[in-house]
Amino acid sequence: MTIPYTERTLALVLRLLEEEHRDEALAIIASLLPADKAALFDALDPQVQEQLLPHVGPDDVADILEELHDDDAAALAESLDAEALVQALDEMEPDEAADLLGDLEPLLRLQALEGMAAADEVRPLLRYPDDSAGGLMTSDYYVFAETERVGQVFRRMRSEAPRDEEIPYIYAVDEQGRLTGVARLADLIRAHPEQPLRAIADPDMIRVSVEADQETAARLLQRYDLMALPVVDTAGRLVGVMSADDAMAALEEEASEDIYLASGIVSLRGQEAARSDLLVRGPIWRTWRVRAPFLLLTMLGGLVAGLVIHSYEEALEAVIVLAMFIPVVMTMGGNAGAQSTEIFIRGHALGQIETRRFLRYLLRELVIGLGMGIVLGALAGIIAGIWQGMPELGLVVELSLVCTMGLAASLGFLIPYGLVKLGADPAAGASPFITTIIDMTGVLVYFLLAIEFLGHLL
Amino acid sequence: MTIPYTERTLALVLRLLEEEHRDEALAIIASLLPADKAALFDALDPQVQEQLLPHVGPDDVADILEELHDDDAAALAESLDAEALVQALDEMEPDEAADLLGDLEPLLRLQALEGMAAADEVRPLLRYPDDSAGGLMTSDYYVFAETERVGQVFRRMRSEAPRDEEIPYIYAVDEQGRLTGVARLADLIRAHPEQPLRAIADPDMIRVSVEADQETAARLLQRYDLMALPVVDTAGRLVGVMSADDAMAALEEEASEDIYLASGIVSLRGQEAARSDLLVRGPIWRTWRVRAPFLLLTMLGGLVAGLVIHSYEEALEAVIVLAMFIPVVMTMGGNAGAQSTEIFIRGHALGQIETRRFLRYLLRELVIGLGMGIVLGALAGIIAGIWQGMPELGLVVELSLVCTMGLAASLGFLIPYGLVKLGADPAAGASPFITTIIDMTGVLVYFLLAIEFLGHLL
Repeated sequence: MTIPYTERTLALVLRLLEEEHRDEALAIIASLLPADKAALFDALDPQVQEQLLPHVGPDDVADILEELHDDDAAALAESLDAEALVQALDEMEPDEAADLLGDLEPLLRLQALEGMAAADEVRPLLRYPDDSAGGLMTSDYYVFAETERVGQVFRRMRSEAPRDEEIPYIYAVDEQGRLTGVARLADLIRAHPEQPLRAIADPDMIRVSVEADQETAARLLQRYDLMALPVVDTAGRLVGVMSADDAMAALEEEASEDIYLASGIVSLRGQEAARSDLLVRGPIWRTWRVRAPFLLLTMLGGLVAGLVIHSYEEALEAVIVLAMFIPVVMTMGGNAGAQSTEIFIRGHALGQIETRRFLRYLLRELVIGLGMGIVLGALAGIIAGIWQGMPELGLVVELSLVCTMGLAASLGFLIPYGLVKLGADPAAGASPFITTIIDMTGVLVYFLLAIEFLGHLL
Repeated sequence: MTIPYTERTLALVLRLLEEEHRDEALAIIASLLPADKAALFDALDPQVQEQLLPHVGPDDVADILEELHDDDAAALAESLDAEALVQALDEMEPDEAADLLGDLEPLLRLQALEGMAAADEVRPLLRYPDDSAGGLMTSDYYVFAETERVGQVFRRMRSEAPRDEEIPYIYAVDEQGRLTGVARLADLIRAHPEQPLRAIADPDMIRVSVEADQETAARLLQRYDLMALPVVDTAGRLVGVMSADDAMAALEEEASEDIYLASGIVSLRGQEAARSDLLVRGPIWRTWRVRAPFLLLTMLGGLVAGLVIHSYEEALEAVIVLAMFIPVVMTMGGNAGAQSTEIFIRGHALGQIETRRFLRYLLRELVIGLGMGIVLGALAGIIAGIWQGMPELGLVVELSLVCTMGLAASLGFLIPYGLVKLGADPAAGASPFITTIIDMTGVLVYFLLAIEFLGHLL
């Protein structure tokens, strides 16, 4: 019987542990679904986790390790004794076991691999980076020679151990192990037992290179509505299969990264992964380290904008009311630029902006920025002009907003585009530069226009 | 033979059409995979699309309609003649057909439903909103009485028409149609033909209510690594199945919405869907309508901040150098607030921030904001103090940044939390309010502190 996991389940387990009914608490944990086991375990205090761990069975430990975040899983794995770790690794899905092994101390990894019964399944997966197709693929799928008959395939499937992963396809390969076709399990059920696998397997399947990055692979799965994607090496040999749930997790990760990068919540080196739970629950100093660099750059931009104001101090002293419209010029430039940047980054990530036709998109964005500047600027300009009884001031505010917003929109596309051309992630570092440049130029344009149109007052 | 789709395929089709080799162009389109057919068709000029459409076969039209964005699909469907539309609808997957029908003119919808052979499959799906589990589910899956034997199930599957959707499970129901279990097709293949379905179907399956919103359903699929999720009505009867690819699309949509909402790229009413391709390629005036409301609010915030400056004009005239540090106070508050907001929104969307323990998260965020304010403010304050030879000015800048960033961090959590408590989307409208409030209070705090510490100079 599976217990649905709620906050009450957690409260119950905590009470049982407090009252030292450890076995009852363990029984409840064992009855949960894997994701819920991990969630409950994750919510316990570290010392309670360590007390409990020696009493949790290897398949429950495996479930928990599979579902925890990489760092947490590695920390937990390193607190296990050697034998318990090996048992848990053998119970884990091969791709998850490989990920975990990759995060362990080298010595511990070697020891664990030596002890593991499933080491041969896991070793080939260790070769690829975690965020590549090779790093996400599993070795837990059905593959048969294309010449085998359907009836034979059935008998083989019945005699082999069941697969943990849910890959709902079977793959056909030739004598060299090269992928030659794919069939849905439903097609297999509907086929005649005497048909060779080749006759029902579709040879025109989508596949991905083992070296492709996870986002490319995930986009293929998504674009073609697949449940799983075969992964091949350069010779076309089938080396693994990436499943839709891994793709979904990969796309979530990329979306989170885009969101955080856009507001500068990642170190500029892009080394620190954008982990939402770190930002919400992790050590405060790590959150600082991730968030502060962007704000530091922003601060320098603000100080330089201040320097611009400083150099126009005489004009400002003569017409003190000029100070009043500094905020509107700054805030409009910054926010219009942020909109453009995010539209570029998202459109590029979803493949809607082809860099080949970039000039067209840039012009369109410029028109949008200028258009919004004209309309909103007119509004602000009229307010400024009437309020202060100075039509020229209104004109200065209007023209400043048009220039700033046009510039902000263009830069919002140009800077991330430049990063793409340099081979960098368009999201990383685009925002701080844009904020800084816009802050400076907005104020500069404003004072230049003021001198031009209000020169007679100075 | 399937042709892989690249920009060269598009160029080839365009050349063939120019040279009036329409049949060759159509042959190439027919050979593409569904997603690629739609991408190619979407890239053609509207008048070319209309010329071509009468010559495209109903299954190709169905493929294209399934893959196009809702609005584009509806526009295309309305340009078809009545018979071609009915044929295409019959070829479409039931959930896609229902989505399309829901977007058509009421009269056209009724006519099409009357003509359709598959109307009975589609009609029940029309009842639910597009973004609910009911709106995403398909009626194209295998379901059998729990008492049937495995061998019987096999024979039934062989005699029924194949399913287009790839739901790799079979569902077991009781006599009232209530869902009682689920089995993977792989389990079915491994089972003994004499076993009843009940014996191999897992009764502890995850299910979702037909009225659940799409994000809830997608999160369940993701959390429990499922390929498909059964959808039940209030009586527990199986009414449909939602597949992983629909879930992935739903999560993408939600991620895009979060990204756009956070930078105010959606109307405040939240009515306009955050469609990246609209923002990148749609009519310019629609993009304006989506982007301008947030900037208008921001502008009002900037003007009010200006009003604050205006009310301290005397102080500013006395110590004109005060103007210099307005930008740094504004930009730091705005950017720190934006970081906090996005961390709250993302953490909430991913279920990492439990609203029950909100106070703890809020305090943590306040500490982070104040901490960053102390460090960065000290830096800016030292620069200001030494540069101008006015230690008091340095103190004013330092304290302003501490206050502003602490306030920005708290508001960045408080305002979206308030929206959650009011039952609104935390992302919608959080940003403009925060930007506006921070712009105003930052400048206000700065001048209040200036009066306090620089009063002797005024």
